[in-house]
Amino acid sequence: MSFNTFGKIFRFTTWGESHGPAIGCIIDGCPPNIAISEKDIQKDMDRRRPGQSKFTTQRKESDKVIILSGVFEGKTTGTPISIIIYNEDKKSRDYESIKNKFRPGHADYTYFKKYGIRDFRGGGRQSARETASRVAAGAVAKIVLKKIIGAKFNIVGAVTQLGLMSCNKNNWKNSEIRKNPFFCPDKQSVKLWEKYLMAVRKAGSSCGAIIELRASGVPVGLGAPIYSKLDTDIAASLMSINAVKGVNIGSGMNAAFLSGEENSDEIRKKSGKIKFKTNHAGGILGGISSGQDIVASFAVKPTSSILTSRETIDKKGKNTKISVRGRHDPCVGIRAVPIGEAMISCVILDHLLMHRAQCS
Amino acid sequence: MSFNTFGKIFRFTTWGESHGPAIGCIIDGCPPNIAISEKDIQKDMDRRRPGQSKFTTQRKESDKVIILSGVFEGKTTGTPISIIIYNEDKKSRDYESIKNKFRPGHADYTYFKKYGIRDFRGGGRQSARETASRVAAGAVAKIVLKKIIGAKFNIVGAVTQLGLMSCNKNNWKNSEIRKNPFFCPDKQSVKLWEKYLMAVRKAGSSCGAIIELRASGVPVGLGAPIYSKLDTDIAASLMSINAVKGVNIGSGMNAAFLSGEENSDEIRKKSGKIKFKTNHAGGILGGISSGQDIVASFAVKPTSSILTSRETIDKKGKNTKISVRGRHDPCVGIRAVPIGEAMISCVILDHLLMHRAQCS
Amino acid sequence: MSFNTFGKIFRFTTWGESHGPAIGCIIDGCPPNIAISEKDIQKDMDRRRPGQSKFTTQRKESDKVIILSGVFEGKTTGTPISIIIYNEDKKSRDYESIKNKFRPGHADYTYFKKYGIRDFRGGGRQSARETASRVAAGAVAKIVLKKIIGAKFNIVGAVTQLGLMSCNKNNWKNSEIRKNPFFCPDKQSVKLWEKYLMAVRKAGSSCGAIIELRASGVPVGLGAPIYSKLDTDIAASLMSINAVKGVNIGSGMNAAFLSGEENSDEIRKKSGKIKFKTNHAGGILGGISSGQDIVASFAVKPTSSILTSRETIDKKGKNTKISVRGRHDPCVGIRAVPIGEAMISCVILDHLLMHRAQCS
Amino acid sequence: MSFNTFGKIFRFTTWGESHGPAIGCIIDGCPPNIAISEKDIQKDMDRRRPGQSKFTTQRKESDKVIILSGVFEGKTTGTPISIIIYNEDKKSRDYESIKNKFRPGHADYTYFKKYGIRDFRGGGRQSARETASRVAAGAVAKIVLKKIIGAKFNIVGAVTQLGLMSCNKNNWKNSEIRKNPFFCPDKQSVKLWEKYLMAVRKAGSSCGAIIELRASGVPVGLGAPIYSKLDTDIAASLMSINAVKGVNIGSGMNAAFLSGEENSDEIRKKSGKIKFKTNHAGGILGGISSGQDIVASFAVKPTSSILTSRETIDKKGKNTKISVRGRHDPCVGIRAVPIGEAMISCVILDHLLMHRAQCS
Repeated sequence: MSFNTFGKIFRFTTWGESHGPAIGCIIDGCPPNIAISEKDIQKDMDRRRPGQSKFTTQRKESDKVIILSGVFEGKTTGTPISIIIYNEDKKSRDYESIKNKFRPGHADYTYFKKYGIRDFRGGGRQSARETASRVAAGAVAKIVLKKIIGAKFNIVGAVTQLGLMSCNKNNWKNSEIRKNPFFCPDKQSVKLWEKYLMAVRKAGSSCGAIIELRASGVPVGLGAPIYSKLDTDIAASLMSINAVKGVNIGSGMNAAFLSGEENSDEIRKKSGKIKFKTNHAGGILGGISSGQDIVASFAVKPTSSILTSRETIDKKGKNTKISVRGRHDPCVGIRAVPIGEAMISCVILDHLLMHRAQCS
Repeated sequence: MSFNTFGKIFRFTTWGESHGPAIGCIIDGCPPNIAISEKDIQKDMDRRRPGQSKFTTQRKESDKVIILSGVFEGKTTGTPISIIIYNEDKKSRDYESIKNKFRPGHADYTYFKKYGIRDFRGGGRQSARETASRVAAGAVAKIVLKKIIGAKFNIVGAVTQLGLMSCNKNNWKNSEIRKNPFFCPDKQSVKLWEKYLMAVRKAGSSCGAIIELRASGVPVGLGAPIYSKLDTDIAASLMSINAVKGVNIGSGMNAAFLSGEENSDEIRKKSGKIKFKTNHAGGILGGISSGQDIVASFAVKPTSSILTSRETIDKKGKNTKISVRGRHDPCVGIRAVPIGEAMISCVILDHLLMHRAQCS
Repeated sequence: MSFNTFGKIFRFTTWGESHGPAIGCIIDGCPPNIAISEKDIQKDMDRRRPGQSKFTTQRKESDKVIILSGVFEGKTTGTPISIIIYNEDKKSRDYESIKNKFRPGHADYTYFKKYGIRDFRGGGRQSARETASRVAAGAVAKIVLKKIIGAKFNIVGAVTQLGLMSCNKNNWKNSEIRKNPFFCPDKQSVKLWEKYLMAVRKAGSSCGAIIELRASGVPVGLGAPIYSKLDTDIAASLMSINAVKGVNIGSGMNAAFLSGEENSDEIRKKSGKIKFKTNHAGGILGGISSGQDIVASFAVKPTSSILTSRETIDKKGKNTKISVRGRHDPCVGIRAVPIGEAMISCVILDHLLMHRAQCS
Repeated sequence: MSFNTFGKIFRFTTWGESHGPAIGCIIDGCPPNIAISEKDIQKDMDRRRPGQSKFTTQRKESDKVIILSGVFEGKTTGTPISIIIYNEDKKSRDYESIKNKFRPGHADYTYFKKYGIRDFRGGGRQSARETASRVAAGAVAKIVLKKIIGAKFNIVGAVTQLGLMSCNKNNWKNSEIRKNPFFCPDKQSVKLWEKYLMAVRKAGSSCGAIIELRASGVPVGLGAPIYSKLDTDIAASLMSINAVKGVNIGSGMNAAFLSGEENSDEIRKKSGKIKFKTNHAGGILGGISSGQDIVASFAVKPTSSILTSRETIDKKGKNTKISVRGRHDPCVGIRAVPIGEAMISCVILDHLLMHRAQCS
């Protein structure tokens, strides 16, 4: 049982609050002798970092990672890797407005009811700031996976739905994703999305998003029946991200609408290689990877903090109203791409290690 | 780490194959002094039992549960409850046709690749027969929850989408669900669904389904940040069920399409009670129950075994074809209702016990 | 968290009470494709089996193991192995005398206080009968270890102290151990021990014992800092056995009396092989195996059920007396040898699999 | 599975190396709303701190604890408590002498063989410096236990054997323990011990020690069959401490030498209270606390680093010699008292929370 730990063999534990002195994570079970540096991890951190476009929160954080243990002379030693990220933009704000009120859509009410105490500064532990630690852990996982599996292993994520705006997945280009602030894989959608999100922001409103993750080069055989299925753990990993409300593997919820014939992913051997004709299964059969691309997607709900006044209650149970002042974050889903990539990387590595344990 | 165990404090471990002598589960961590009997568990078993209508598999199993330990003079003792269910309908069939072929959509290929060996009789461990053990564990969880929380606690599940056929959720009646073989909550849809599924069956095809679960009376405060969120564990529990490809909490994937205003679930105090104006969150905020109904849904893919011939390969990697003979199961999703209820019951009880540990 | 489960990757869960219909265990995480049979397991069961000499309990049990799952065509499939052992000698005895009294030295009082209910028949779950399940799990572990490590791997256990009687460990012969009912490794001590234990039995008394375990052929590198040390897990595994009160690794408690020079286990390379000049460490340094023999010992307290009347209280808290009638078991420690061997085998296999996960 | 995490509900994860920038721990599962401060923790830290007498290592560390998360306005919030301790005395020493040699009795050889890499600076992760993190976690556990159980709860540890010198346990005074640098509970032994240890130090040698722990006020009913016994977890917790080779519960290894009559701990009710006439069981029956004092002891081997030259091999497998220069630590066991207290406190709290989960 582990409230703040994720994983089975490759495990990470995160700690820290939005406006405490620092946040961080401990990575345990990392294989030894893997070259790793703060610089390597920083690359991924920078993709999640706030304040990089007008469409995300304006909190200023350099998110600089510092490795405190587990790496010696540039290589992992097999002992716990402690990573710390100091909070820089934690200046004393006017928390009076939210200190005694429960923001709708946030976990203010439930935290208070559960623990009888809550750190209200910026959401405390419920803040998405915690996800920075995940990205650090995921960066380590990706480096290890590349070392073990080789260059053919790749993880990519993109926003495929921005509120009411979809994109054309047939135009998906990995290279495009990093070129726009929306992590949109379809060049033609970018301008439309920009207009749309500007309108949402100006209206003081917010919108949700769907993120799709694709992992290629994953060996066949990762995952395990019955309660350590690869898709079970992917679902858990993604649902654990703040504001996520739905997770699909392959065709996901749409599988309900397919016929048995459509959904069957027939298998062929062609020029010595095993190929599936389709990938409705998202690369996972019976909880075990099939060697196809692993495809998972998840939905992020619209930002709960909006400029429009909302009805709520205060700590004493009195009816009141609340609204966010100043600038807000019109779509938290955008920044979920590197987080999703991090989580699925950790799950895949974890299952790779588990597979070595039982079946090597 | 536990391949075949589910849960943290209230834990169950399942074992057994489709055509072995028996299947079963061990429930560990059950509170003591709870009145429980085989008869109580049997009620739930009978709802999942095969062969009860022309729309489900014709395998004949009485699914009789036998308690081998952990209950003394009609009450739980706090020690492991071992439940066994003998397989009755395991007559030697012609497995030659599937012994050396990998059925598309099934886990034949991945099990073989992972382990280098597989029990091909009826799918062995990958068979949905395993879910009978889950239903037994879930029945115990429900009894314990009723004892601890009281009569106001209730779990109900229903099929809300049968392939291409939806139902009108405004007509949802709990009492209706048990009256039809589809677990449909909307009386008016039953006849249409019957026609539809008959047609699917006659075509030798199959269809998927969406199941919705509703848990009422769940106390506020269950769940825990960050990696033991209630929704994380519900997602994992449902994704672990055979053939499930998508999981939603509350608005789920549709949350992506909502505006911040629509999604915010405003809070009101009315006549001394805290009420949320909507429930897009599905009763869970920041991974912790809010006291609202917990609402989760999941999609089951269409039955992979269909009468139409499908392309595949054999154990030696040669291209071949495969099709199911005789009767088949046009929609495996139907029988997933009691399984989903069982899983969510186990998750809720587990979190209730965890909450007592940390916060009582 | 797992009340009745032992292990991390190779895990077993035991269930069942002394006088219930059966006991058993589920082994999860066992590597696939290992040849295993009920007959193989039975050999170890027979060494622990009661009623084999006048010095152990006269309960009549054939302890026949039945494998219900996880083995297909004679080989493990990588899925849970369910083993059941039916209780045969559970005839209705006169429990009235102990039903309402707490036997000193037994867990009657603590079970009742903890759970508010207890299965008093033969001690219920606290009975040493549970250890039969451990021996079954250990037998599987040993077979897997022999398969992975090869013939050089060996586990042997012996009683080195029987109450006040010691033996000469310089005379230790593995072949001798199975030839006498005391698991004594020193032929010259056997007759003295026999006389001694006869006297103890006739006096209606009982005595304790010390068991020493030696594992040879264990590869260097098993174990892990800090809380998964090999010696930590061995200590836990042995202390979990009924009536065990002390555990030593290598020199154990006596290490306190050694000087730094004596204790240092100097290292030499001789004819291409690394040798330690002594083995005070018991083959474990910093929680990791060194390639030397792993040596652990544990003390079993004297049988609590004796013919002499003892003072105690009853369920209502009234002072009373209790004594065992009929034959009794003068030294429960004797039968602990195969149990200790089983536990250490499971720990070593578990660590071998963990090592493969992180370091292969 | 968790290499560097201890506990089930109240869990702590430690990280850091002897000569890295810092060490620390994350405490997860701590109950909320408990008043806690760095000052409270510091008290325990100061008892373990090196350099406080001529009999312990002269490394200079203030061991100042800093709380980075999980405490808000002086109270625990139920979220992870991150504690960091900066290493101050990590000046660049001449590690050349040990960089390529394996110190006998240390884990140099096994770490290198396991991971293929090791942080040789001061022993890296294998250093006893890690135990500072445990003391911090234990301090938190003690505060929580005092809050939940009340003032009657108390933990005390003492050195009862210093190499060849024993003390008279009949003279045990808790107040005496903190008055001498040996944690000796018997005033009359202090001077003799001082002479003895001075002689050991001057000879460049070292000696072992036995530490006894006593926990009073522990409620009846903590612990759980079969693999979560309280004594199992205490044994694991103590064996995980650096250099510990043996663990006793109550009479421990000496239980082997007792008769059934002597060992039986008869029960009496006197003036409304249940009393045991003796406490050979060390307060634990069947793995569950009986309400008596919990008594455990453990042996620490003599310091491996001594001034006398020892034979060993180097990284290339060549025979060589090694000896420590300058001052050394004649008995590492002395400083193990606060560590043992910390570990047993964590175990008792963990079981108290587990008991609330299942049985409240």
